[in-house]
Amino acid sequence: MRIVLDAMGSDHAPEVDVEGGVRAARRFGQEVVLVGRRDAIEAELAKYDTAGLPLSIVHASEVVTMDEHPSQAVRNKPDASIVVGMGQLREGKADALVSMGNSGGVLAAAVAGEGRIGRIPGVQRPAISTVFPHMEGFSFLLDIGANTDCKPDWLAQFALMGAVYARNVLHIANPRVALLSNGEEEIKGNRLVQETRELLRQLHLNFIGNVEGKDLPRGLADVIVTDGFVGNVAIKTAEGVATMILSLLKSEIRRRPLAVLGGLLAKPAFKAAGRRLDYREYGGAPLLGVNGVVIIGHGRSDALAVENAIGLAITAVRSNLIETIRQDIQDAMTVLAHTTRQPKGAGVE
Amino acid sequence: MRIVLDAMGSDHAPEVDVEGGVRAARRFGQEVVLVGRRDAIEAELAKYDTAGLPLSIVHASEVVTMDEHPSQAVRNKPDASIVVGMGQLREGKADALVSMGNSGGVLAAAVAGEGRIGRIPGVQRPAISTVFPHMEGFSFLLDIGANTDCKPDWLAQFALMGAVYARNVLHIANPRVALLSNGEEEIKGNRLVQETRELLRQLHLNFIGNVEGKDLPRGLADVIVTDGFVGNVAIKTAEGVATMILSLLKSEIRRRPLAVLGGLLAKPAFKAAGRRLDYREYGGAPLLGVNGVVIIGHGRSDALAVENAIGLAITAVRSNLIETIRQDIQDAMTVLAHTTRQPKGAGVE
Repeated sequence: MRIVLDAMGSDHAPEVDVEGGVRAARRFGQEVVLVGRRDAIEAELAKYDTAGLPLSIVHASEVVTMDEHPSQAVRNKPDASIVVGMGQLREGKADALVSMGNSGGVLAAAVAGEGRIGRIPGVQRPAISTVFPHMEGFSFLLDIGANTDCKPDWLAQFALMGAVYARNVLHIANPRVALLSNGEEEIKGNRLVQETRELLRQLHLNFIGNVEGKDLPRGLADVIVTDGFVGNVAIKTAEGVATMILSLLKSEIRRRPLAVLGGLLAKPAFKAAGRRLDYREYGGAPLLGVNGVVIIGHGRSDALAVENAIGLAITAVRSNLIETIRQDIQDAMTVLAHTTRQPKGAGVE
Repeated sequence: MRIVLDAMGSDHAPEVDVEGGVRAARRFGQEVVLVGRRDAIEAELAKYDTAGLPLSIVHASEVVTMDEHPSQAVRNKPDASIVVGMGQLREGKADALVSMGNSGGVLAAAVAGEGRIGRIPGVQRPAISTVFPHMEGFSFLLDIGANTDCKPDWLAQFALMGAVYARNVLHIANPRVALLSNGEEEIKGNRLVQETRELLRQLHLNFIGNVEGKDLPRGLADVIVTDGFVGNVAIKTAEGVATMILSLLKSEIRRRPLAVLGGLLAKPAFKAAGRRLDYREYGGAPLLGVNGVVIIGHGRSDALAVENAIGLAITAVRSNLIETIRQDIQDAMTVLAHTTRQPKGAGVE
């Protein structure tokens, strides 16, 4: 198996990306193809004993940065690492792609630009996903930004794809699927949620109904489905609130000498709490719906996160993620096609 | 001035509601009209020295509970405290209403049912608002649940009404108004956000553009506008994440004897941080767009929150909140009416 790693993806690229790639090659024994500036990658590789490790380099001279408009950047930079890396997938030279880069850029490279792999037949829109920490683990949330204005059948497909990923890669036997809404009750939800609920009821899913924002960190569902606008607001609000609470605690502790001592004594507990929220153990989450295994990690990733993201990609390939999604989408299409023809499910437009 | 207090509103009604009413009557010297079961209210009043305080009781035999469907409950219970209280406003017997009850119930009582006060002329939809804590204070967020599917001109009116409230009641001279979006950049936003932005640019507002979920706790804007579905998901996500982080910290501290000691030493810092996030200092937030001053507080309120909510109501009445909104909406209507006739602002449907 060959896994393409965008060596220029993370905020500290190529340093942590290459280190993660080396660790993954050692741990999993599958070939890791490092894509990016050859000289920079070689300089990083020189730091490790890579003798005998299945590592290779594909040169790409450019990089898509965070502040660029993704689809423009992908068009304007045919030699960007993410574009060249995606091309490896397109040409069948690799089985999966992993990037810690801008998720908009990865999405754009997957569906537009030189190396595009396009969508899985039958999939209407790809979705960007993430893991969301809760007290006992992580839930899986999608879409978090690929599609701001969604139709019910798109969301139904997100649910199907998320359930396949949860089964095949996260090893959750019968994943509970829920819709993110403004209340648990049946009558709650905007039009999109209400129409999507009707569709989800008809599919072969363990659909448990609505969950609220406050349920996101409670682990009530394994797969939580929403449109990319709401999903983005939710995860960024969560991030912002977590940051604020920790800053507030720190600033109040610093003002009090006894509390500073207390903070030191409690530090291992703080660290343990932090680990339980730590996305790095998970490494990343898939770009679902594109015609190939693509795992996207945090820009702030360290080498462990990169290593684990590559592990997810390997599991996804081994479990036939793409083929299972294609099959499940095909199976559902008759139902969805029938239902969306009714006025009730006709979309939000 | 007479302020109606729904004595049956809070989770611990009528105990904390009546205590808050007594404290407010003492502090502000304005008449507080306690609406609810006379015997229960009198039993609570007997706990305090109320001699000479401007307090009165209006009997209402029923209560709208949290688990009822708001508009059905309001219709089925014409003698519910919130319905009778709203009637006091409608009949001009009081200047404002304060309730710690279910915001859906308060909204329903304001626009439907016996005692309805209806909307301010020109206002298309009322909005439920809240204060959102940040490092230096609170932002003001609306809508958080009254309207799940919104049109651009509704959101533009929320912005106008929020700005009036920020100026008149929160004493922010030139409030910064922002749209909640999935990115700060101009190109970001779903169709609703993009179309609303065009409207807001044409109004006399200090409109600063988009803010993201992660900016909510950063105090970048004074008034943050969104539709009721997204606003609800955002505040509930924030609530859920805050609860989870504190639970996680506690559970990890409890496992470690030294950390338990540390936690005790740091307790004053934790408490101080908690106070800085404490909604009780603010008491509540208005139901904006209805034709009367209505302040809604948390169900979990204590007497201080009730007292402060009454304080907000008094400030709102003194500052001519309703008349200012009516005027600002009228002034904006020509612009809005003109713009919404263009295809670009034609709504999300």
